[in-house]
Amino acid sequence: MGKSLNILVLNGPNLGLLGRRSPEIYGRRSLADVEAMLRQAAVELDCTVDCRQSDVEGELVGWIGAAMAVRDGLILNAGAYTHTSIALRDAIAGTGLPAVEVHISNIHAREEFRRVSMTAPVCIGQICGFGVDGYALALRALVGWLRSRA
Amino acid sequence: MGKSLNILVLNGPNLGLLGRRSPEIYGRRSLADVEAMLRQAAVELDCTVDCRQSDVEGELVGWIGAAMAVRDGLILNAGAYTHTSIALRDAIAGTGLPAVEVHISNIHAREEFRRVSMTAPVCIGQICGFGVDGYALALRALVGWLRSRA
Amino acid sequence: MGKSLNILVLNGPNLGLLGRRSPEIYGRRSLADVEAMLRQAAVELDCTVDCRQSDVEGELVGWIGAAMAVRDGLILNAGAYTHTSIALRDAIAGTGLPAVEVHISNIHAREEFRRVSMTAPVCIGQICGFGVDGYALALRALVGWLRSRA
Amino acid sequence: MGKSLNILVLNGPNLGLLGRRSPEIYGRRSLADVEAMLRQAAVELDCTVDCRQSDVEGELVGWIGAAMAVRDGLILNAGAYTHTSIALRDAIAGTGLPAVEVHISNIHAREEFRRVSMTAPVCIGQICGFGVDGYALALRALVGWLRSRA
Amino acid sequence: MGKSLNILVLNGPNLGLLGRRSPEIYGRRSLADVEAMLRQAAVELDCTVDCRQSDVEGELVGWIGAAMAVRDGLILNAGAYTHTSIALRDAIAGTGLPAVEVHISNIHAREEFRRVSMTAPVCIGQICGFGVDGYALALRALVGWLRSRA
Amino acid sequence: MGKSLNILVLNGPNLGLLGRRSPEIYGRRSLADVEAMLRQAAVELDCTVDCRQSDVEGELVGWIGAAMAVRDGLILNAGAYTHTSIALRDAIAGTGLPAVEVHISNIHAREEFRRVSMTAPVCIGQICGFGVDGYALALRALVGWLRSRA
Amino acid sequence: MGKSLNILVLNGPNLGLLGRRSPEIYGRRSLADVEAMLRQAAVELDCTVDCRQSDVEGELVGWIGAAMAVRDGLILNAGAYTHTSIALRDAIAGTGLPAVEVHISNIHAREEFRRVSMTAPVCIGQICGFGVDGYALALRALVGWLRSRA
Amino acid sequence: MGKSLNILVLNGPNLGLLGRRSPEIYGRRSLADVEAMLRQAAVELDCTVDCRQSDVEGELVGWIGAAMAVRDGLILNAGAYTHTSIALRDAIAGTGLPAVEVHISNIHAREEFRRVSMTAPVCIGQICGFGVDGYALALRALVGWLRSRA
Amino acid sequence: MGKSLNILVLNGPNLGLLGRRSPEIYGRRSLADVEAMLRQAAVELDCTVDCRQSDVEGELVGWIGAAMAVRDGLILNAGAYTHTSIALRDAIAGTGLPAVEVHISNIHAREEFRRVSMTAPVCIGQICGFGVDGYALALRALVGWLRSRA
Amino acid sequence: MGKSLNILVLNGPNLGLLGRRSPEIYGRRSLADVEAMLRQAAVELDCTVDCRQSDVEGELVGWIGAAMAVRDGLILNAGAYTHTSIALRDAIAGTGLPAVEVHISNIHAREEFRRVSMTAPVCIGQICGFGVDGYALALRALVGWLRSRA
Amino acid sequence: MGKSLNILVLNGPNLGLLGRRSPEIYGRRSLADVEAMLRQAAVELDCTVDCRQSDVEGELVGWIGAAMAVRDGLILNAGAYTHTSIALRDAIAGTGLPAVEVHISNIHAREEFRRVSMTAPVCIGQICGFGVDGYALALRALVGWLRSRA
Amino acid sequence: MGKSLNILVLNGPNLGLLGRRSPEIYGRRSLADVEAMLRQAAVELDCTVDCRQSDVEGELVGWIGAAMAVRDGLILNAGAYTHTSIALRDAIAGTGLPAVEVHISNIHAREEFRRVSMTAPVCIGQICGFGVDGYALALRALVGWLRSRA
Repeated sequence: MGKSLNILVLNGPNLGLLGRRSPEIYGRRSLADVEAMLRQAAVELDCTVDCRQSDVEGELVGWIGAAMAVRDGLILNAGAYTHTSIALRDAIAGTGLPAVEVHISNIHAREEFRRVSMTAPVCIGQICGFGVDGYALALRALVGWLRSRA
Repeated sequence: MGKSLNILVLNGPNLGLLGRRSPEIYGRRSLADVEAMLRQAAVELDCTVDCRQSDVEGELVGWIGAAMAVRDGLILNAGAYTHTSIALRDAIAGTGLPAVEVHISNIHAREEFRRVSMTAPVCIGQICGFGVDGYALALRALVGWLRSRA
Repeated sequence: MGKSLNILVLNGPNLGLLGRRSPEIYGRRSLADVEAMLRQAAVELDCTVDCRQSDVEGELVGWIGAAMAVRDGLILNAGAYTHTSIALRDAIAGTGLPAVEVHISNIHAREEFRRVSMTAPVCIGQICGFGVDGYALALRALVGWLRSRA
Repeated sequence: MGKSLNILVLNGPNLGLLGRRSPEIYGRRSLADVEAMLRQAAVELDCTVDCRQSDVEGELVGWIGAAMAVRDGLILNAGAYTHTSIALRDAIAGTGLPAVEVHISNIHAREEFRRVSMTAPVCIGQICGFGVDGYALALRALVGWLRSRA
Repeated sequence: MGKSLNILVLNGPNLGLLGRRSPEIYGRRSLADVEAMLRQAAVELDCTVDCRQSDVEGELVGWIGAAMAVRDGLILNAGAYTHTSIALRDAIAGTGLPAVEVHISNIHAREEFRRVSMTAPVCIGQICGFGVDGYALALRALVGWLRSRA
Repeated sequence: MGKSLNILVLNGPNLGLLGRRSPEIYGRRSLADVEAMLRQAAVELDCTVDCRQSDVEGELVGWIGAAMAVRDGLILNAGAYTHTSIALRDAIAGTGLPAVEVHISNIHAREEFRRVSMTAPVCIGQICGFGVDGYALALRALVGWLRSRA
Repeated sequence: MGKSLNILVLNGPNLGLLGRRSPEIYGRRSLADVEAMLRQAAVELDCTVDCRQSDVEGELVGWIGAAMAVRDGLILNAGAYTHTSIALRDAIAGTGLPAVEVHISNIHAREEFRRVSMTAPVCIGQICGFGVDGYALALRALVGWLRSRA
Repeated sequence: MGKSLNILVLNGPNLGLLGRRSPEIYGRRSLADVEAMLRQAAVELDCTVDCRQSDVEGELVGWIGAAMAVRDGLILNAGAYTHTSIALRDAIAGTGLPAVEVHISNIHAREEFRRVSMTAPVCIGQICGFGVDGYALALRALVGWLRSRA
Repeated sequence: MGKSLNILVLNGPNLGLLGRRSPEIYGRRSLADVEAMLRQAAVELDCTVDCRQSDVEGELVGWIGAAMAVRDGLILNAGAYTHTSIALRDAIAGTGLPAVEVHISNIHAREEFRRVSMTAPVCIGQICGFGVDGYALALRALVGWLRSRA
Repeated sequence: MGKSLNILVLNGPNLGLLGRRSPEIYGRRSLADVEAMLRQAAVELDCTVDCRQSDVEGELVGWIGAAMAVRDGLILNAGAYTHTSIALRDAIAGTGLPAVEVHISNIHAREEFRRVSMTAPVCIGQICGFGVDGYALALRALVGWLRSRA
Repeated sequence: MGKSLNILVLNGPNLGLLGRRSPEIYGRRSLADVEAMLRQAAVELDCTVDCRQSDVEGELVGWIGAAMAVRDGLILNAGAYTHTSIALRDAIAGTGLPAVEVHISNIHAREEFRRVSMTAPVCIGQICGFGVDGYALALRALVGWLRSRA
Repeated sequence: MGKSLNILVLNGPNLGLLGRRSPEIYGRRSLADVEAMLRQAAVELDCTVDCRQSDVEGELVGWIGAAMAVRDGLILNAGAYTHTSIALRDAIAGTGLPAVEVHISNIHAREEFRRVSMTAPVCIGQICGFGVDGYALALRALVGWLRSRA
């Protein structure tokens, strides 16, 4: 088994309300629950996760920039910024950080403007529609991808 | 008469320059003037207003999230973010806060890109073109709407 | 206080069915109720209102033309013609009549084709989403606008 | 057998010229011929038809409004207004009158702008391309639809 | 009365599930029921019908090609292929077979992509929205059209 | 010289305000002035003109229908209906009346939506930008066209 | 009567073939015939015309530049360059030469790409559809326009 | 633990060439390898998988129809048909089969036409970009989704 | 001279009707005639051709897949599938088979939707408009291309 | 064998640089080489070729005009003008000269704006992607087309 | 020589990574290097520069607002926000600060979405493609522009 | 210091009118003034400039072709051809000449069609909005770019 991987997990705008906002779409588990679940999954997968949330696009951009050459990979749910943020796209592409995009809901089954992702083209892949379980799937996918290239 | 209502009033980017920026479009009253006018109107309408301004989209998003289940309603002039911000739209829809959208100028008579509002579809309604008097009209409309459902 | 203002209130196609057509969208008050409410509000605001309704686009156009230099202002709910009528737009712009556009429902939250207004760019402003209370808000806004320029 | 049904048949702009206008497209039977044919078909189907024609969009809108709760159904050939009239769409949807849309020619085989119908989405269905026989097919279809729900 | 007509009736993808798939849209009668209904209607109209169904676009294309100069006409519900199949359009236009397009649901009241038909421009006409009764209306319309030209 | 020609001159919505509405665009001559000028020009060109104006699209449609086989030609300034009216297009095409389209202003130098004409494709030609002199040019052009085919 | 006016008449690509190219669209008179006709009309209208033709866009541009402050006005049939040439548009606007755009055929009744003119927005007006008689109408319109401003 | 689940795994056009076609995009494992890997993963997850591949859209449609009420869920890599097939979309929606969409490559990082999926809106979710490991992630996600609703 | 080349010639939907379908567009020679002509041309060019036709997109896809590393090149007239088939495009690109696209008619002179080819971007080149002689030209072009790279 | 045919071969902008410009796209043979090759091919096909090149659109237009009724056919590689020149299109259509369009590279595999040809719709056909050999194929195709109609 | 000018230099998202992010696009000099270079150039040009960088759109907006009537001009590289930020556009237009837009890379040679700038229309001009030397060119251009108006 | 560089400076259509055409946009300096200014700047930068102007697109294309391997770089203000000329784009890309695009006015602040440049993607960079000073900035930028690669 390879070295322990260090993964940054970023959640974007409104995700701090998880569990309270539109539970029929996003479920009833809070962001703290999700982060606890991820930390537990990380143990299983022999890696560590650092979880952060911000409503401010530029703060997310800054965290990605600061992760350059420091973290092994990124799990990103950029929320509403997914569909418009060239800055996040540039941050991922510019740092070269391997990234997986996650969405709690199936963005393809909602409004037209949610179907396009500015960030997905510079990520390894995208997982959406599986509720907060998508984060665990993303961690598994990212770790698998990193290990296969280690 | 019902209980005293608690209304959050949010102003977005560049509105801190009100009265100085393009007075031929936005008039000569400052944001402080407008907020004073609103507080006076609130007395008449038996409600309280909490007025805030930020140039940062994510900060506006955060204030709406924090108002969930705490405020009775929202008056929002999101300025330039009106036309692009899915995050503000999600914040309003997610918190379920009754909101009224205000614009000082008649956005329908300006550039094409100002005619579309990302937030209006999740508000009760929209008032535009009446200068800063639009805020008072919005407060009256929002209080009327809330009282009729109280 | 200035002279008593003379306001023309025009309602367009299908608004004669108000109170009976789609009450979940338009409410249960009839056009006669709305007009009575407006006449009462006019007393308070020291002005007079002349209310008319027609399903015929050209008849609305003609009434606006005939109001040129005779009325002080116009409140217009052009209904379905809002979104396509260049003739109404030309009538308002050509007569120079100060106009306020009203919509009972929030047109931004309905079908895509209801989001564009051909007439709003030549009006002072637009008020939508507050049910038939929007007419009273519009009268107040229009009278305020006219008085501030008197 | 159910009660005798009362069907309103509306023809829109230029249909008064039927039989004389572009007979290679619309055939040689006049509107009077068509209405006679429909009255005869109505006898067979145990219903009555009231046939009207107008070149004025607002008059058609008014007739539909007046039919609310008075007629059992509507057969509509709105002619050129089919493709642009939000007012007719609102009239049908607002009155809740079951309606069938008819076109004499195959609108899908003509100019691009004739392929979209504003009214079809609020009708039961659409029949086009069968010349004036389409009216009889529409009456049969509408009566069948009404009887199956009686 | 003319000779007995020989009509090909083709149903496209997913129509084998009729009666079981989305009954709130397509009703509860199976394809076998519909075909039996059509055979009975054919007797009344003095014609014969040959009913086939395939999920494979190319098989439908082949059946139309094979019908050239053998059948008198075609009733086609191409299902999902209606909106994309240039091959079916070419088959109908190339064989010169008089065709009537049928849709069980009102395609104009559903998703945007269902409003355009690739095949309708090369058919005599289109009937939609009347449930499976549309097939009988189509047969009546097609036989009437053929007899009037016999 | 050929027989005296009988020309119908139709003016559409808002043209009754000519000379008073936006004189910087449309000039200061009234519709009555224009019609007098046209009658005088008609004498010179040995023809008669019948001038009418209506704000109602359907009334214009009806006048064109009634002119079928009665008038020799049509001069049409459909005003705002120029850009949207399929009904007027169908009326001209259906009656086969030779028509010339006139616009007082240069429609190509104004808003984007004024650059497309629904009626021009079924007219002989179009003249725009020469103020009310365009009507006289149109009469001359139409009479020339008719005489060259007489 | 004012001074004798000096008008430049420019014909663009393929117009040298006039009378031989597609006579069913452009008629049988040659460019020499048209120029002779224009010179005769010029005598009547007390002006002089200088007629030129080129297939090269840049040569037409150069002629307009050279006419600045030398000619009184321009009649332009830019042929195919009408629909794409920003250079001709800039030349007319830059020199400030009053210009009338002529087209022999009715460009609104042909291919879609012929309906937009890059040059018309910087001309006084446009005349199209009257065959080569359009040149004489244009000369009359231009001279009238210049005289009314002399 | 719930009952053993029965999952249908469908691969569409060109996926029979897996391992040989464009290995720099799709990797070097063959479809047989992938199916073996899935059967092994199925054992772990206590379910069975039935894997099929077809280049024919209609055959895939037929297999989904046949799975109605027989299988517990569907894993679908419809390959090139993903982006155009309304028939597959109708099959999934019509049968009500819970489905997960898989793509081996990151479709968001390729040609524009690969970014839209016709089928994703009627699936639970989508997983793309993780090579053939995406199938195992999809099985895990689907089984988790089914178990949480069992 | 190089080794004898082995060329696959595929014809798509409706091409089995060649000579009978729309002969004014496609000519009067049958597919058998064309194949005979190609076999004769192959002798001259020292190669062999294997000619197949199918109305089923997936069958064409399968034949291309099976030709991988077995054939030297492909001549493809995908008929109606040309304009929509991503699956055929993927098959050609995935197998790396040098391909030439042929169309009997000039697809650029027909309906708008026939002007775009999904497959041409992954072919060597395209030949269209020369009737069935285009196949022989394509064979000559393909053999020349292969020989120059042998 | 028919009379000796006289073919005009025109090359447009930048083709004078052939062999030196982007040889990885256009190959290393110069325009002189290509013309020599064409003259040799012409001997075989019993025709004569006149080869010209110009960077000036209007000069190409003029040469086509001058060829009317003088040449038997045209081979045209209009280079960059292919995608924008209505003037060249009008020249070909107006003179009625049978024309074949050639492109050295596969224009369908390059930038989006190179996929549309303004001239192809008025040519017999188009050949692209076969390097400079495309000229010889075009000559063969054109001569075959002319002979078959001689 | 005029007074010493005071220039604000703003860099937007991801520009803090300059020299490390995608050096093949943005070069190897860090933002500190660029700022040092600018300060040196400022000495030569007799002005002072105040350089700031932020990833947060609203912070950039705030800095521009605060510069109103305090600074003489603005050099702005808004990075990814260039293409979407109406707020930055409003800030520049509202404060009336003379601004020059700089981009390190040639934005016209990259993805389609980078070709449109929301801010350029309210700037004096734009310089792009010259690497970090573009900042010095911008300073020279801005100072020249200010001095010529001093 | 490197060898003396040889720069070609090309000005396109209407730029011969510089100083006289629209001076409020383009300033009052003539092209001769600009060229003198450039020659002086060239001395300072130790290079030579050869300045030419043409209204003919093809002549500009030819000059660029002739400069291949003879000049060191190109400064191009293609004027109106900037927005449409694929031929100029091909000339620059084909010759490999390092080029800088200049515009006197800020093209981003004018009509929509002036915002897209066909040539900028194949240039090093673009400078616009600084009046004729832009030429000197471009020379400085180009020489700097060439020297840094010498």
